[in-house]
Amino acid sequence: MSGCSFCAILAGDSEATFVWRDDLVSAFMDIQPINAGHILLVPNTHASALADVPAETAARLMQAAQRLAQALRESGLRCDGVSLFLADGEAAGQDVFHTHLHVFPRYRGDGFGLRLGPDYLNRPSRPELDRVGQLIRSALA
Amino acid sequence: MSGCSFCAILAGDSEATFVWRDDLVSAFMDIQPINAGHILLVPNTHASALADVPAETAARLMQAAQRLAQALRESGLRCDGVSLFLADGEAAGQDVFHTHLHVFPRYRGDGFGLRLGPDYLNRPSRPELDRVGQLIRSALA
Repeated sequence: MSGCSFCAILAGDSEATFVWRDDLVSAFMDIQPINAGHILLVPNTHASALADVPAETAARLMQAAQRLAQALRESGLRCDGVSLFLADGEAAGQDVFHTHLHVFPRYRGDGFGLRLGPDYLNRPSRPELDRVGQLIRSALA
Repeated sequence: MSGCSFCAILAGDSEATFVWRDDLVSAFMDIQPINAGHILLVPNTHASALADVPAETAARLMQAAQRLAQALRESGLRCDGVSLFLADGEAAGQDVFHTHLHVFPRYRGDGFGLRLGPDYLNRPSRPELDRVGQLIRSALA
């Protein structure tokens, strides 16, 4: 898509260090890594939101992430664990509106973590979880 | 697996609020949600690490996550965006050693965020990204 920085990378019009290319998805190094080895995995065809990614491509994203996570562990880079992260929508922190799955190495003391909201420690009751679950099941139906 | 709290949930031996069950994966409400509507999506068969998840199941995880993310947006719960997160390994913050993909609603001001390490703003040079990319490509080969 015109104006999409990831589409420009995929088209070869913008510089990137690729580590994966197949018929559905590609992966390249994040230029601002959380840890060395931080990979961005993207559908080859523009899809701004997760909902726009064809199911076959969504499937391939996780399969490629699995292979890339294993490669990170075997690469010699500092990597005792791997985090996957995907932000879908501006409210989730998505910055480039071409869906991308972050795959990055983790090690003890790397400084990365999740900042949790003020309600995190307030565990809901089972009836409340059931109420929320029912809303989700209704939306799925 | 004996002693695995998610296997106990999947077997019906421990209480949970399910929102998804198919032949390969299941999803239930997190009892300590980051935001209301926080879902844990898991393989039906025990797999402690992402590398232990069969490729077909990995694929289904992302396809189900896509459907659940859409359901969260349509549920009436507060949800302007969705985050997906998976911690693979203790160093990545994995706490239950049955692979699980977090799928949770996001909204502006929810207090959730990523805590980044001290090196985050030091952008590596392109030769350094190429060196790291080569290590990953070699591990994939």
